Parts: sequence; structure tokens; C-alpha cells
Amino acid sequence: MSPALIAIDWGSSSFRAYLLSADGEVLEEMASGDGIASVAAGAYPATLRRLVGRWLDANPTLPAIASGMVGSRHGWREAPYVPCPAGARDVAERLTAVEAEGRRVVLAPGLSYADGAGVDVMRGEETEIFGVADAGGRIIVLPGSHSKWAKVEGERVVAFKTFITGELFAALRDHTVAGAFAGAAPAQEPGPAFALGVERGAAAAGGKTKSGLLGLLFGARALPLMGKLDPDDSGEYLSGLLIGAEIGEARRLYPGEEPHVAGAEPLVKRYLAAFEALGVGAHAAAPRAAARGLFRIARDGGLL
Amino acid sequence: MSPALIAIDWGSSSFRAYLLSADGEVLEEMASGDGIASVAAGAYPATLRRLVGRWLDANPTLPAIASGMVGSRHGWREAPYVPCPAGARDVAERLTAVEAEGRRVVLAPGLSYADGAGVDVMRGEETEIFGVADAGGRIIVLPGSHSKWAKVEGERVVAFKTFITGELFAALRDHTVAGAFAGAAPAQEPGPAFALGVERGAAAAGGKTKSGLLGLLFGARALPLMGKLDPDDSGEYLSGLLIGAEIGEARRLYPGEEPHVAGAEPLVKRYLAAFEALGVGAHAAAPRAAARGLFRIARDGGLL
Repeated sequence: MSPALIAIDWGSSSFRAYLLSADGEVLEEMASGDGIASVAAGAYPATLRRLVGRWLDANPTLPAIASGMVGSRHGWREAPYVPCPAGARDVAERLTAVEAEGRRVVLAPGLSYADGAGVDVMRGEETEIFGVADAGGRIIVLPGSHSKWAKVEGERVVAFKTFITGELFAALRDHTVAGAFAGAAPAQEPGPAFALGVERGAAAAGGKTKSGLLGLLFGARALPLMGKLDPDDSGEYLSGLLIGAEIGEARRLYPGEEPHVAGAEPLVKRYLAAFEALGVGAHAAAPRAAARGLFRIARDGGLL
Repeated sequence: MSPALIAIDWGSSSFRAYLLSADGEVLEEMASGDGIASVAAGAYPATLRRLVGRWLDANPTLPAIASGMVGSRHGWREAPYVPCPAGARDVAERLTAVEAEGRRVVLAPGLSYADGAGVDVMRGEETEIFGVADAGGRIIVLPGSHSKWAKVEGERVVAFKTFITGELFAALRDHTVAGAFAGAAPAQEPGPAFALGVERGAAAAGGKTKSGLLGLLFGARALPLMGKLDPDDSGEYLSGLLIGAEIGEARRLYPGEEPHVAGAEPLVKRYLAAFEALGVGAHAAAPRAAARGLFRIARDGGLL
């Protein structure tokens, strides 16, 4: 099949590009660490050429679309957030175009969501969500430094919530007593200490016990200190507390349907283990959700 | 009045000593940054001489008592934790003696507390608690890196809980996006952004809203980003979220009586502002609670 689209997921610390056919199939794929944090202002066209120049040269009329922090005020050009409810079609109507060597590249905006308690934003994750929603997901979880939970109705994101679970875990592990016994690397397989943390974190977040998350964190130090937890397990216990709390909080916001989890394989596995510990059914989404979402936006935007 | 006791609060990062009269009055006081983290094994006698040698020489028979991390396994000698319920008398029965130049110094143990959800420990804070309890406090709050809430009945600590609020705040401010807009120094006076954070944090911890603490943290970034909060206020908002969550969680554990807050003046002021924002009556404890508590232990231990 011949290429029909270059789709790029260009975040703060990573660059991932797909060469897609006219029906959305991934023909080629490449990834690099050239996130926008390492790209100087004005260096976007040259960086794009360096990374996917081969695709550009071989297909001079091929359209290109990029999402993620590349469309932020610190990126190539700002593509202002689209407020929820929003689907691929809404995003497709708000594309921002930039030029690279006379070639047009469109930047997809992120989403914003306002509710009573405040406001939330995402940039890049919406393409993954559209990709998973396309395959039937209605409650979609993207674990990570800033985990996102999204609720989809009629192919549009109607609500979402960010939890800084991954970043909080690293900060606690590296800069507080809660991580004093924790090793730097996570366990290959989440075990019983992780599951115990998940159960306690979720119960606390669900308001089912008198313990709260803040009060549980010191336990990652006190339990090993008093011989109630193997010190080697304290990192897994802490990871479980936070992921459990995230799930507990998110399930109060978005109860009901079984979540679909998308992202890097070890993290998806860890979240599925957490859902299992809580007796909640959950599904691993098919990989390359971002490519599917970008294809969907490009198609709705008339790029194909 | 003549000196009757040298009382020392010797923690990880600070040393504070009091010269007390036979009725517990503070005759002299000194403080330094010579916490046990900076004292080499075996260097305790020399450090003590360097810091309070003048008192030791002037009063060759004066008893000396020290509490805090100096009695941990990383300190001078380990004084094993006393399980709750425990009061000054219980601690006084479990003193550990060390020698410095033929002179006896007693180390007071910390407290441990086990409940269904785990186990908790303190070392040093118990002297402050005994000091506040002596003046009538029944729910006692010691804000800090590791805030402690203690419940006192009949002059004994029957339950306590540690919240790593201060340390978590610093880790979030310095190492996550939640602190991206926050300055390094706290505001002199807690203002409306602090109060807003307190209300939201407490409501989340109290299970009164669908928001949880984890989900609120990203707001410290998203709200300023979307123009809903002055970026200069985001640090105060974050501080409020955490202190509010601590209070919300702790009040579920220890409802009822009005808390007495002891500690460094700016932090006590901040917590009193938080209690005020929540409509909870609270009291500032008299200063030098540690001196009063150490005096009490020394008296019950027959040192005087």
C-alpha cells in the first residue's frame, strides 16, 4: 500500500512518527528522544527533516499532522485547547498550520475541561483517546507521569481528569522518607506488596476507611522500620498506594463501565494488576492508539 | 533559681538545649544546627561538650536528658520505641543511659502506635506532646515535614498519626509540574489562595466531594495555565491543598475536641489560618513544649 499520511506524536521528551496508508495501516514507524524540550525555537523544520526526511523526500505531496506539546506555547506554534465535549471532528476543525521548507504541517490542539472544582488540560493524549474510543472504549485510562482518565460518549470526550501519579511517585521515592527503602527500579512483576498498597490506597480514596492517602504515605517508611513490610517491597507498596488511590478517586468520578488502558506495556500491565487486585474488570487497549487517533483527526480534517 | 536539669531536643538536623530549674522554668536556652545527621559515630560526647560544655562544667552533678533521633539506631544509642498508650511515666521507665566523660546522659525513647491499617512511629515529638498535654491539650498537632496528630487521654498518648505533609509539599514544589509556578519561599501571610486550597483539600479528604487529593494536585498547574489562578498564588494554593487534606484526614480520625497546635511560629500561624478557613476552633500551644515534656519525663524518671 502507498503512504497517505505522516502522523507524529511529538511530546516534551519524545518524538514518535508513523507512516500510514489510506486506510490507516502503519507502514513504517520511528521513535527518537527529540522531544520539544530539546528543540530550540526555530529549529522545528530542521529537526523534522533530520528525523523523517526520508519519508518527506520519498513522498513530496504527503500530508503531515502532529499532536502533543509541539502545539503548545513552548512548541512550534500554539494550537489553543479545544474545550470538551470534543471529538476528533472538533479537533480537526481547529488545526493550526505551520510551514517547513514550503511544506505544510498541521498541528492538532489539545483539550481542556472545566468542571466545578477547576479546570484540566491535555495535549497529545487526546489522539490516543480517539484511537481507543474508535475501538469501542468508553472509559479510557492512559497511565503515566500525568495519568489521564477520559469518559467518552458518542465518540467525544465529555470529561477527563489528570492525576500526577507517576511524577508524584518519583518525587516521593527520590525526595522523601516514604522512598527511603525503595529501589530506583520497579519490580518486573507487580507482587503482593503492590496489591496490598493498591487495596489500601483505593480504600482510602474511596472514603471507605478512616485512613486517607496522605496518612498512608508515611507507612512506606514506618512499616519496614517496624518489621511489618520487607524493606525491598516498600517501593512496590508505595507504587500500589498511589495507583490504588488514583483508581479509587477516578472510579468515583467515572463509575460503571470497565476501563480500557492504553500506553507503554509495563505500565499497562501494572495498572491491569491493580484493577485485578480491586476486582475491577479492565482491558488493555490495542497498541499504537496515537496513530489511529491522528489518522482519524486527519481524515475528519480533510487531509486525506 | 539554680539549675536542676539539662534537657536536650536532639533531632536529625537540629540541636536545642534548655537549662531548667527544679520547677521546670527555662533559665537558659541554646540552639544549633548540629543534628545527628552531622555527628559521626563516636563523636556524641565531644559534640555535647562543644555545645553545652559551659553548663556541664558549671554544674558537675546536673542530670542530662535527651530525646529525638539521638536515641535512634542511627544516633548515640538506640532507645527502643515504647508502644502506645504511653505517657511521660511510661517513657521515664524506659530510658537508655550513655556515658560522656564519666557523666551520665539519659536518652528518652520515642513512641510507636499500631492500628488496623499499619504502624506509626515518632521520636522527639512525644516530648512536645507531653508538654502540651500537661497544659490541657487533648488533640495535639505538631506541623512540620512529618506532621504528627496525637490523641491524649489521662495524660497518655492513646493514638497518633504521621502525615508527611511538609516533605510532600517540598517534593511536589521542587520536583513536579504541580510546583512549576510556585516560588521557593512561602508567603508571609497565608491569603485567599491558601484558604481556597485548604477548603478543597479538606473537602476531598473528608469524602465530601468527588475530587480526591491526587486529582486536585494537577490543578496547581492547570488553574494558572488556564488563567483561573494567579501563577504567583499557586504555591500557596498547593500548600493549602496539602494542609487541608491533612486536617480533613486527621479530623476523621480524631473528631471532636479543638486541636492544640505546637511548633515553630510561622507554621503554627499557617495551621491556625487553615483551621479558621474550615471553621474549626484551634489553639496555639505555649512555646517550649519540648522543654516542659522533657522536664516531666525527667521528674517521672527520678532524675530530679
